[in-house]
Amino acid sequence: MKIGIIGAGQLGRMLALSGYPLGLRFVFLDQSEDAPGAQVGRIIKGAFDDPRALAELAANVDVVTFDVENVPVDAVRDIAAKKPFLPPPSALGGSQDRLDEKTLFRRLKIPTPEFAAVDSQDDLIRAVEKIGLPGVLKTRRLGYDGRGQYFLRTRDDIEIAWTTLGSVPLIYEGFVDFSREVSIIGVRSTKGEIACYPLSANTHSQGILRYSIAPYRSATLQRQAETYLKRLMKHFDYAGILTIEFFVKRGQLIANEMAPRVHNSGHWTIEGAATSQFENHVRAILGLPLGSTQPIGHSAMVNFIGTIPTAAAVLKIPGVHYHSYGKEPRPNRKLGHCTVVAASASARDKSLRQLLKVRDSK
Amino acid sequence: MKIGIIGAGQLGRMLALSGYPLGLRFVFLDQSEDAPGAQVGRIIKGAFDDPRALAELAANVDVVTFDVENVPVDAVRDIAAKKPFLPPPSALGGSQDRLDEKTLFRRLKIPTPEFAAVDSQDDLIRAVEKIGLPGVLKTRRLGYDGRGQYFLRTRDDIEIAWTTLGSVPLIYEGFVDFSREVSIIGVRSTKGEIACYPLSANTHSQGILRYSIAPYRSATLQRQAETYLKRLMKHFDYAGILTIEFFVKRGQLIANEMAPRVHNSGHWTIEGAATSQFENHVRAILGLPLGSTQPIGHSAMVNFIGTIPTAAAVLKIPGVHYHSYGKEPRPNRKLGHCTVVAASASARDKSLRQLLKVRDSK
Repeated sequence: MKIGIIGAGQLGRMLALSGYPLGLRFVFLDQSEDAPGAQVGRIIKGAFDDPRALAELAANVDVVTFDVENVPVDAVRDIAAKKPFLPPPSALGGSQDRLDEKTLFRRLKIPTPEFAAVDSQDDLIRAVEKIGLPGVLKTRRLGYDGRGQYFLRTRDDIEIAWTTLGSVPLIYEGFVDFSREVSIIGVRSTKGEIACYPLSANTHSQGILRYSIAPYRSATLQRQAETYLKRLMKHFDYAGILTIEFFVKRGQLIANEMAPRVHNSGHWTIEGAATSQFENHVRAILGLPLGSTQPIGHSAMVNFIGTIPTAAAVLKIPGVHYHSYGKEPRPNRKLGHCTVVAASASARDKSLRQLLKVRDSK
Repeated sequence: MKIGIIGAGQLGRMLALSGYPLGLRFVFLDQSEDAPGAQVGRIIKGAFDDPRALAELAANVDVVTFDVENVPVDAVRDIAAKKPFLPPPSALGGSQDRLDEKTLFRRLKIPTPEFAAVDSQDDLIRAVEKIGLPGVLKTRRLGYDGRGQYFLRTRDDIEIAWTTLGSVPLIYEGFVDFSREVSIIGVRSTKGEIACYPLSANTHSQGILRYSIAPYRSATLQRQAETYLKRLMKHFDYAGILTIEFFVKRGQLIANEMAPRVHNSGHWTIEGAATSQFENHVRAILGLPLGSTQPIGHSAMVNFIGTIPTAAAVLKIPGVHYHSYGKEPRPNRKLGHCTVVAASASARDKSLRQLLKVRDSK
């Protein structure tokens, strides 16, 4: 069986690395022939919405999936009609527009921050009046890792926020004064089998995930998160890995966004769970039995952004596993990550502190 | 960093799959462009003793290693003089001749079966008289997976054994009436750091490994095996994974053979240990800190030889991980393996029984 992956970034690369043992082969579509996936599979060069490249990809594989959310849904409808395209285009589309996404969450009774569509400065003024301050003005589409967002503290920020982002459709969201950010990652196979990983507690800075800790144990939040995730999966007749990121406020989950793909906050599952999110994504879209999502001890995952320490510098820390994506360093670029796995939370935290120290000494 | 691997079989492939996360790249030398490694690295086509191909491999990489034992030592001396070649050629050579190997074991006070060189039918008669029956006549070189061996029960077998194998240098070994076969796998880095995996208990049939169980817990045997392994590592100033296979007789280890490479009886370490033998081999030859060899629960590894069940058939068994090497089926060919990892030995054994049942229903 051959799997086609739209996008040959680190996620696509990790999907392929997890899928080779299953006897699978991989072909990528990417704009760059030097993308991280290039070392572990053939690249068909093209834009994500290039009909010729998409058709070539589909013609060469049995199933098509993707490692990026910004694949234009209209561009893939043709190939989705001919080849299994999973997760389904509806979920891909559903995640691409923050307004549609939050509207769906609300329809499925998944709590969200207060929000309002903003298509003019007047809309923004009305939204701020209704929802209050502080709040975040965001582009509805193509935002990720904190890009396309403006944080509003006072009414004086309205004009600059509008000027900065106002050329495209926007959404204004009430700021959630959260105590913690967590994500749930689950998987549903084409046979309808579902498995969920334990929650991960995530620390962001400037909109980019810096590190995650898993499992984040809270029986109540775990149950709540799984309920919401399954509701979304059922809605989309989903197959593959699905992620929801939540704010935690006064012991309640408030959904921030979903990602219809393997997720940065689940990289710890490579060494920290019985089956990785990458392998389970592949199993799910092929209709294979899912692997156990049980954690192995206590894990932490640290992202390397802009710079990456050497393997020699971090592998001396107990329980550390090193992942370099083979990318050229560039500011704000995710170059790699490390996962710590330890037998106890305190041993994990000790290694995590050492790891953060090495990272920050760069 | 680029690693060159002589041989692109399943071992080379698993080395590459474990090494990509470390940011490494891989080039193989192999006679076949369809070898299992071809999907995950470039193949330089050539025989293992082809000076042009070996020189091309060495010129393209930073370190050279191998996934087969039958690499002619004379052929690699040239490249070993120019590029790090690890494990060292002396260890490669030391494992290629059963007489040299057992002579070295004896010199290092590692117990072996009784043995004698056999270069004529008269030698064989004398060896049988001295060592007794039953015994095994083996080719000194190029034997693996039970090939090049003749089992002698009575003196009447001498002539047929000699006729069958006598065209090449031989060794006669007293048969060890063992209660169990175990192997120790350890790793030594170029910095001299050493780590050993727990013993694996191995079941062979017709000279081919059928399944392994690990960890095989015996504090006494573990200590004994590690002592012998470290003695060999020191002798060779070794770097990489080194394996010794032992017979267990009346609670004592008797060394059968060594392998200066990652080993089939260590495949369980991919999911069953904190760091796999493959990753530790790569770390070791690059002088990186070694990863923990601690087991995760209780593992069993089953080889698929000649035929391989589908992933769908085995992945429904709890705790099973599937590895297909992407080879065409052929009698006696190792096509893949499965590893069971479970929280208890009894859960492991239950899954193992189901797995063997699926394998044998083919």
